[in-house]
Amino acid sequence: MAQKYATRAEDYSKWYNEVIARADLAEHSDVRGCMVIKPYGYAIWENMRDILDRRFKETGHSNAYFPLFIPKSYLSKEASHVDGFAKECAVVTHYRLKNDPNGKGVIVDPDAKLEEELIVRPTSETIIWNSYKNWIQSYRDLPILINQWANVVRWEMRTRLFLRTAEFLWQEGHTAHATKTEAIAEAEQMLDVYTEFAENYMAMPVFRGRKSESERFAGADDTYCIEAMMQDGKALQAGTSHFLGQNFAKAFEVKFADKEGKLDFVWATSWGVSTRLMGALIMTHADDEGLVLPPALAPIQVVIVPIHRSDEELEAINAAVATITAELKPQGIFKVKYDADDQKRPGWKFAEYEAKGVPVRLAIGPRDLANGVVEVARRDTKEKSSMALENIGETIKALLDDIQSNLFERSKKFRTENMHTVDTYEDFKTRLEKEGGFYLAHWDGTKETEEKVKQETQATIRCIPLDIPSEPGVCMVTGKPSQQRVIFAKAY
Amino acid sequence: MAQKYATRAEDYSKWYNEVIARADLAEHSDVRGCMVIKPYGYAIWENMRDILDRRFKETGHSNAYFPLFIPKSYLSKEASHVDGFAKECAVVTHYRLKNDPNGKGVIVDPDAKLEEELIVRPTSETIIWNSYKNWIQSYRDLPILINQWANVVRWEMRTRLFLRTAEFLWQEGHTAHATKTEAIAEAEQMLDVYTEFAENYMAMPVFRGRKSESERFAGADDTYCIEAMMQDGKALQAGTSHFLGQNFAKAFEVKFADKEGKLDFVWATSWGVSTRLMGALIMTHADDEGLVLPPALAPIQVVIVPIHRSDEELEAINAAVATITAELKPQGIFKVKYDADDQKRPGWKFAEYEAKGVPVRLAIGPRDLANGVVEVARRDTKEKSSMALENIGETIKALLDDIQSNLFERSKKFRTENMHTVDTYEDFKTRLEKEGGFYLAHWDGTKETEEKVKQETQATIRCIPLDIPSEPGVCMVTGKPSQQRVIFAKAY
Repeated sequence: MAQKYATRAEDYSKWYNEVIARADLAEHSDVRGCMVIKPYGYAIWENMRDILDRRFKETGHSNAYFPLFIPKSYLSKEASHVDGFAKECAVVTHYRLKNDPNGKGVIVDPDAKLEEELIVRPTSETIIWNSYKNWIQSYRDLPILINQWANVVRWEMRTRLFLRTAEFLWQEGHTAHATKTEAIAEAEQMLDVYTEFAENYMAMPVFRGRKSESERFAGADDTYCIEAMMQDGKALQAGTSHFLGQNFAKAFEVKFADKEGKLDFVWATSWGVSTRLMGALIMTHADDEGLVLPPALAPIQVVIVPIHRSDEELEAINAAVATITAELKPQGIFKVKYDADDQKRPGWKFAEYEAKGVPVRLAIGPRDLANGVVEVARRDTKEKSSMALENIGETIKALLDDIQSNLFERSKKFRTENMHTVDTYEDFKTRLEKEGGFYLAHWDGTKETEEKVKQETQATIRCIPLDIPSEPGVCMVTGKPSQQRVIFAKAY
Repeated sequence: MAQKYATRAEDYSKWYNEVIARADLAEHSDVRGCMVIKPYGYAIWENMRDILDRRFKETGHSNAYFPLFIPKSYLSKEASHVDGFAKECAVVTHYRLKNDPNGKGVIVDPDAKLEEELIVRPTSETIIWNSYKNWIQSYRDLPILINQWANVVRWEMRTRLFLRTAEFLWQEGHTAHATKTEAIAEAEQMLDVYTEFAENYMAMPVFRGRKSESERFAGADDTYCIEAMMQDGKALQAGTSHFLGQNFAKAFEVKFADKEGKLDFVWATSWGVSTRLMGALIMTHADDEGLVLPPALAPIQVVIVPIHRSDEELEAINAAVATITAELKPQGIFKVKYDADDQKRPGWKFAEYEAKGVPVRLAIGPRDLANGVVEVARRDTKEKSSMALENIGETIKALLDDIQSNLFERSKKFRTENMHTVDTYEDFKTRLEKEGGFYLAHWDGTKETEEKVKQETQATIRCIPLDIPSEPGVCMVTGKPSQQRVIFAKAY
């Protein structure tokens, strides 16, 4: 009998872990807080990376690579930055091990202590601005538009696969500009790149917005973000783009001469998304049967399973599959897997590829062949139908497109249903507790009110939305004036 | 007046550093031993990575990602492995900083000491085999064919950009097999992949061989390598592929049940190339004018420089360049840069792209246009000629192919000229001192002889070559019997 797995309704957190395990995406390692990203999970991340990387290059950015280690003193140069990151970092203090003189394996060699400790980068603003200092003299050296794909470490006590791990993979863009206007435009442009990626590839609707002061990146003047709603109604910050003002330029004394020869500090941005997006992808689309992948990111877009009793039957199916595969290619469908492994039954394979979220499954038996059809199952709705082998390339192409847009529309509908407008704090508290979801509410703009809401309800201001027109009103908590509604929600 | 740069003959080491600086490939960071790979250098590395990654996937491998940190005790599990790596590693001992109570910035929080120190991975055999332990139960779980692109750290005291840095980027393949034969075949296959990459893309001839016991990877039963000759006659190990026997399986107790249910330890390989290849690429082809890139790896294959006095002239050239670019695309030549920056003179641009090693430069002025020609300069031979604009796509394609093969043939010729066969130790010592280069000589197979040669001449056994037929003979040092000649050389 099949193993019983947790449903979303029964135990959301257990369901999430089981989806990851069943699809073989990742696992905890023995190293506290660090995960192993397994081949199937990594293949999805590679697809994300390649699409984003292409967009970064199309928008004028180049990749580079900066050191893993940051001297401790660099972190301290930007005051709010060190406050934000010093609490949670891995510190390298020695550079050698030696044999224990008592014969008990290897120990840290006390003679190999570093003069200055090195921090494993939690983010690279400081080490990068220390380099930019030498690269920038005049306006001719600007803008600098660089991105880095890297691993970073933030020591987390409570970790969850993809969502919160001590080490994670990400990209971090770091740009330098001659003017404030240009830097803000860059930060906004990259927010748009993230938005398009989330919606068009991940099929995940997001709100674009600004962070409140207390939720801002440590060292930023303004933090833009995209916020997505997970199936439990909680928010997940899926990407951030920071306008850093002249803060890092001042901390590292990076000035440039403008056309008139006048010196000024350089303006900066930084922006990033991480393997956290994997968690967002899972919690946006997966269902009680396992992972559900949008075709644009699926490592396997179409899986084909033969149903046969004899070798002769299999041979006939093999020939048909070769034809199908050849017809899928001109449609741009290359990620096709034919699973003819005869050690496993078709039913086992069906469940396996369902758990792995493969968008389309084709099953072919002798009777299908005789009738010139194939059984097509779509993962998103779990509908099965018999489709003609004739023009199968175009049929499957249309189906994949339909799955991609259906996933987006379905998530958007879910979000709309769980998006509430509230005007009183009582109403907010009651509904948040009962229904979860996102709340559009007026806020007086103060840290104190924000903190009070957080303490009393665990909800935070996810963003001050850019795309939701909002009339002025009064703060739901204090009754003070408010310029626009903001989005409150509990968050990952 | 133009700055005077070191030539290879004058100061090879200075020349190497200047080639890197002039082409803007990389620089030393403030963090001891760690480099910054700048955008142009990283673009070359990206090309290398993409080509290798495709070959790894074609040969059945998947990418995955394992933790940056390795618990200290894991390193010790394989005895020779810890001996090989413990001397040179970054050790994480704490996970938090705090504000100095005396107000002097941030200090390491003594309360945040790790129970067990973590080593920043110098290579990942131990952490990976600790995972494989849980992934492998039966022969059905084998083979496991995984590769990882990652950063690694080996604490080096004397560093050189790309050749020897504390942190470097690499790929490390780690495979698990049911039989010894299969594992050896895998190690040999990956050596072939590296060989093809070095010769067909880097245009760098290599010797395939086995390492002597004392040069083997710490933990391997057999290390295969490719060795290239640099322009100073020294050897550079460009890639290694290790047959690890059952050493790591035994250290981490990884057994599998075969078809009959009998338990046995798993067989392993690992193989890697790193950003060191960038150093090899530079030292194989660069000349006294700067970098020389093989077209297969060049981020810019063709640069086009307009030569004009008026805006009208520039407009006519712009139109011609659009046509040229359009004709290059169908030939698969997409990496084309049109540098119409009017802040810089053509002569400055010529020197710049020469230093950057761009294989082909086109210069177009009004007179060229009138004559239906373009001035073509090839970087490898520095020949200039006037070529018809008609069929320019095919002309440039043929030229790029010719440059690619010319670079390979030129390097091969250089290697042949600096490859010597010697029969007496006196002859070896004299010629090594005077001429440098590689020496085919008989060796008695003992560590002692190898060590004596190393101490007395600084030359090491680069490899026991796989492709050079060699008659039995007597060791040049001891006169004892030898099965085949091996390659001695000084090495990077």
